[in-house]
Amino acid sequence: MSARRSFTRSVVSVAVVSAATLLAGGVAVAQQFDQLYAPIAPPKSVDLGKVELGKKLYFDPRLSKSGFISCNSCHNLSMGGTDNIRTSIGDKWQQGPINSPTVLNSSLNLAQFWDGRAADLKAQAGGPIANPGEMAFSHTLAIDMLASIPAYVREFKLVFGKDKPDIDQVTEAIAEFEKTLVTPNSKFDQYLLGNKAALNKDELAGYRLFNESGCVACHNGPNLGGNSFQKMGVVEAYKGNTKNVEGRSAVTGKDADRFNYKVPTLRNVELTYPYFHDGASDTLAQAVDVMGRLQLGKKFTNAENEQIVAFLKTLTGEQPVFRLPILPPSSDSTPRPTPFK
Amino acid sequence: MSARRSFTRSVVSVAVVSAATLLAGGVAVAQQFDQLYAPIAPPKSVDLGKVELGKKLYFDPRLSKSGFISCNSCHNLSMGGTDNIRTSIGDKWQQGPINSPTVLNSSLNLAQFWDGRAADLKAQAGGPIANPGEMAFSHTLAIDMLASIPAYVREFKLVFGKDKPDIDQVTEAIAEFEKTLVTPNSKFDQYLLGNKAALNKDELAGYRLFNESGCVACHNGPNLGGNSFQKMGVVEAYKGNTKNVEGRSAVTGKDADRFNYKVPTLRNVELTYPYFHDGASDTLAQAVDVMGRLQLGKKFTNAENEQIVAFLKTLTGEQPVFRLPILPPSSDSTPRPTPFK
Repeated sequence: MSARRSFTRSVVSVAVVSAATLLAGGVAVAQQFDQLYAPIAPPKSVDLGKVELGKKLYFDPRLSKSGFISCNSCHNLSMGGTDNIRTSIGDKWQQGPINSPTVLNSSLNLAQFWDGRAADLKAQAGGPIANPGEMAFSHTLAIDMLASIPAYVREFKLVFGKDKPDIDQVTEAIAEFEKTLVTPNSKFDQYLLGNKAALNKDELAGYRLFNESGCVACHNGPNLGGNSFQKMGVVEAYKGNTKNVEGRSAVTGKDADRFNYKVPTLRNVELTYPYFHDGASDTLAQAVDVMGRLQLGKKFTNAENEQIVAFLKTLTGEQPVFRLPILPPSSDSTPRPTPFK
Repeated sequence: MSARRSFTRSVVSVAVVSAATLLAGGVAVAQQFDQLYAPIAPPKSVDLGKVELGKKLYFDPRLSKSGFISCNSCHNLSMGGTDNIRTSIGDKWQQGPINSPTVLNSSLNLAQFWDGRAADLKAQAGGPIANPGEMAFSHTLAIDMLASIPAYVREFKLVFGKDKPDIDQVTEAIAEFEKTLVTPNSKFDQYLLGNKAALNKDELAGYRLFNESGCVACHNGPNLGGNSFQKMGVVEAYKGNTKNVEGRSAVTGKDADRFNYKVPTLRNVELTYPYFHDGASDTLAQAVDVMGRLQLGKKFTNAENEQIVAFLKTLTGEQPVFRLPILPPSSDSTPRPTPFK
């Protein structure tokens, strides 16, 4: 982790320098920028007991009041770790305020949620369970449910060595499973790892545009993003929805942080539509156009836009492959879900 | 299929005879009843291309208006092929009228839905997609969605040899996947296949009670049910909810068929709580008590109830094991879900 963080910091520094160079009119070829990225690597150390338990919890809708919504409902691992809806559906079909970010490669982000209010995946995992607009449960009720199911109690005991599950164990197991949700071996990673033929002519042209236009200034590092907070609307104000989702200022209390959001990863961006915190852009073409104009003051031609989109599609990695978990059944004493109360 | 059907018919005949014998005071030991059942067997002939395509469709929420509800939402293969909710949640959180039956082993049923209005799985699969209270989509919109996704179009072409997907192909693929959702090798099946030690003393006592009390009259065959329509409330009227779900009469138009429902399978019944068409019984103990009193005019003692429940838990088979499917992404021209319109 510390190695990764210091790597990320150095990438950011280099990126800022490079962007400055670029703005000063410097000319760069693609390979000079390669060092600003890094391939997605499999996690170095995972606790497989926690992973398997966390996988069950991730798919268990009994962690919601209704018994209908699981982590996988909004971070669907069949669909790029998102729900592909503008803003998510919560308990009783409430409309969420913000687009669900992908869970894929999220362990590489500097913080979780669009405003970074959770320091890490473990801190994030407890949020939606207790959020009245999402799973609408409580940590106490979630633990009561788990503690009533003998097979869960045994598995928690095996993995954590304690007689009773608690929310700390729940979030730790979910986070450990999420650490495994990385997507290595994209075409871009093959390129970074030495197979320079992995990108075709259009993709390479898109990569050059991505670097030389300045996209790289924010979208760098192994996750091509996820490692800084940046203002949405630098050159031109963003006209999308910002109601109740003013970004980083909600965490820092600083007015200067309004409309600052965590830069989303571009990994698997082909799968994680619609785009931006409000999900207002349905297509990559539209998202690239908006970013060019608002962040860089640049109107990409259709040909340029297509080339950048072609490059972005090389960021689709191998999706996590695993067996659908089978959940232990409720016991006679398990409290029943209350979807309609 | 025809062999299976004629087997089912003969089982039903034997069951009726046996129940008659029983009512006439005949004494039988467990093994005399073994012939009324059959172990769950793997399907004899499946088209693997259809299975893999059908698996994707089964997990694809884009077959719903909201983009949020898939077949797996209410027939969750992590949870016994059900949603474990009294009545299901449909588009915009509508409360469904009836409990979702399990998809597991449903290929063995004589018809689909509680009232049997679909002759087979293929006929069933199109229903929820177009039901305004469930997935709230239409077959036309579902096909428009699929036809806009190049990877789906290619897979349909590979499997069906046609240039364009249609609803007939969709339901055929889903039904083929569902044919694979059988659960062999339960303790009871091990017993039926010759390992008489597979059931312990209590389970065997429960099996005897199940047979000798008359449960077998309706719950027989390979699925311990699913092969006849029977009145809910024979000896005593059922006090649960029957509003808008009057059963078989909705199909036949005959008043005599009111409150006749397809007898549910007892396979994996430990996982498919809550019970009955209205999901009003949360536990097996309660369900056994209600069935004893209403259908057989018999009040089981606590000890008897526990033994029958112990037997019922031997019907939990090996759950279908497969990789979570990865869905092909929407294209720029794919119509977007409209969850809040």
